[in-house]
Amino acid sequence: MPNLVSRRQFTVEWAHCDPAGIVFNSRFFEYFDWGTWILFETALGVKPENMSGALGIILPLVDVSARFVTPARFGDVVELYSQIGEFRRSSFDVAHRLMIAGALAVEGRESRVWATRDAASPSGIKALPIPDDIVSRFQM
Amino acid sequence: MPNLVSRRQFTVEWAHCDPAGIVFNSRFFEYFDWGTWILFETALGVKPENMSGALGIILPLVDVSARFVTPARFGDVVELYSQIGEFRRSSFDVAHRLMIAGALAVEGRESRVWATRDAASPSGIKALPIPDDIVSRFQM
Amino acid sequence: MPNLVSRRQFTVEWAHCDPAGIVFNSRFFEYFDWGTWILFETALGVKPENMSGALGIILPLVDVSARFVTPARFGDVVELYSQIGEFRRSSFDVAHRLMIAGALAVEGRESRVWATRDAASPSGIKALPIPDDIVSRFQM
Amino acid sequence: MPNLVSRRQFTVEWAHCDPAGIVFNSRFFEYFDWGTWILFETALGVKPENMSGALGIILPLVDVSARFVTPARFGDVVELYSQIGEFRRSSFDVAHRLMIAGALAVEGRESRVWATRDAASPSGIKALPIPDDIVSRFQM
Repeated sequence: MPNLVSRRQFTVEWAHCDPAGIVFNSRFFEYFDWGTWILFETALGVKPENMSGALGIILPLVDVSARFVTPARFGDVVELYSQIGEFRRSSFDVAHRLMIAGALAVEGRESRVWATRDAASPSGIKALPIPDDIVSRFQM
Repeated sequence: MPNLVSRRQFTVEWAHCDPAGIVFNSRFFEYFDWGTWILFETALGVKPENMSGALGIILPLVDVSARFVTPARFGDVVELYSQIGEFRRSSFDVAHRLMIAGALAVEGRESRVWATRDAASPSGIKALPIPDDIVSRFQM
Repeated sequence: MPNLVSRRQFTVEWAHCDPAGIVFNSRFFEYFDWGTWILFETALGVKPENMSGALGIILPLVDVSARFVTPARFGDVVELYSQIGEFRRSSFDVAHRLMIAGALAVEGRESRVWATRDAASPSGIKALPIPDDIVSRFQM
Repeated sequence: MPNLVSRRQFTVEWAHCDPAGIVFNSRFFEYFDWGTWILFETALGVKPENMSGALGIILPLVDVSARFVTPARFGDVVELYSQIGEFRRSSFDVAHRLMIAGALAVEGRESRVWATRDAASPSGIKALPIPDDIVSRFQM
């Protein structure tokens, strides 16, 4: 089971908030993206900027969702927990929980493909099977 | 049936794109948000900045999702079609389709509440029933 | 004299505004960037996404500034006027004026280099002289 | 002399970068804004979200500039140093230096007004003299 959980703490900035005084929804998807990079760095020990080079893969996003439970506000200290939700043959889900003061504020889920660039493919990418030794690194 | 569809055309800007040369996913949620404002302006004839004042309501987002079919790239001319997916008692869905060169690039869905500010409520807002005459304005 | 002026009209979106209800300052630099692409398209007849390929150049930004005269608010209809401020040997300035309801709201200036990619240079780019026939296209 | 310097360390995220693979210029103004809040928190011991309430003031931005010396890239660890450049009667400058690997990457400057909301003023705000005891808190 991919039970490794990465954690990132940060503070909600003025620039993240909209005229209602709360984080505008698009920002959460920036938070999630960064959470995924940190999860992979935690599991694989490869820095985000080196991952594509070191592993020869890219992780295109095919589906994403978020459920907003409580608004996040300017100055809120956020804990973002990221974990693999599921590994499939050549794709996987990352589950994100964004906690404020110990309570769930936002839940998110990204579905990504384990892929390589492929000039011969119409989409420019080709999905690859996720190696077992990668999967095993997400288990503590 | 809420069959009114609003349409917005715009061009993908350099600033919307990431190092992969495609629109970074969070931007689509900005596009969707603006699509919803335009749909309401189209249906109700109220400018976005006057809607809260004119109707006495706000439309907090509780759930959002997107499915990425084809990447959007710098310079792509985008058609964004927005339509009510479903009206419920005091909430509703907006379905967004983002087309590039006539093909579906991204599908999105927002779930929003029809609400008013309420200082007595712990959440600061109170859901209200969506008036029938509002619902009827989203039918052509 | 580079007197060609390009014009772009757009509306300030909810997502552009901060908790003070006004456009957050970083957004103006997105507006300016897009204004520059439109100015070049207007002058040279080359679409933004083709410019680097067609001309073999890139336009790195080296300096930028803005002066905020009047806040821009949600729903404001903005006219952005962009014009070359000065052509130098291998760099140039773009002056941007952002008007709301006929009054100046923001003034901006970008300084950019006329450059090509150069793997042999430590910076990865090499400045080139701006061709006379390019300069002349910014005169009406 | 206002010699207090605040420091923030962060990492450049994928979402901050453009198709050239470098931080898009508008992001630096988000970084600067947050640097100013942190400088004020460091000097005054008031959390950003409480500052307006505690001091009764707002700090509208009237002028901003940046000079880009070296590109910032995905994964770069950034040190942002923020310091008062000058206090005037009712306005002040904040100087920002963004360092990567010990070298200056970007220099910025914000000019802000020390103001209060004023419904009687056409602009909605009124500049106030900066109190001496505030100024003195920016000296170490």
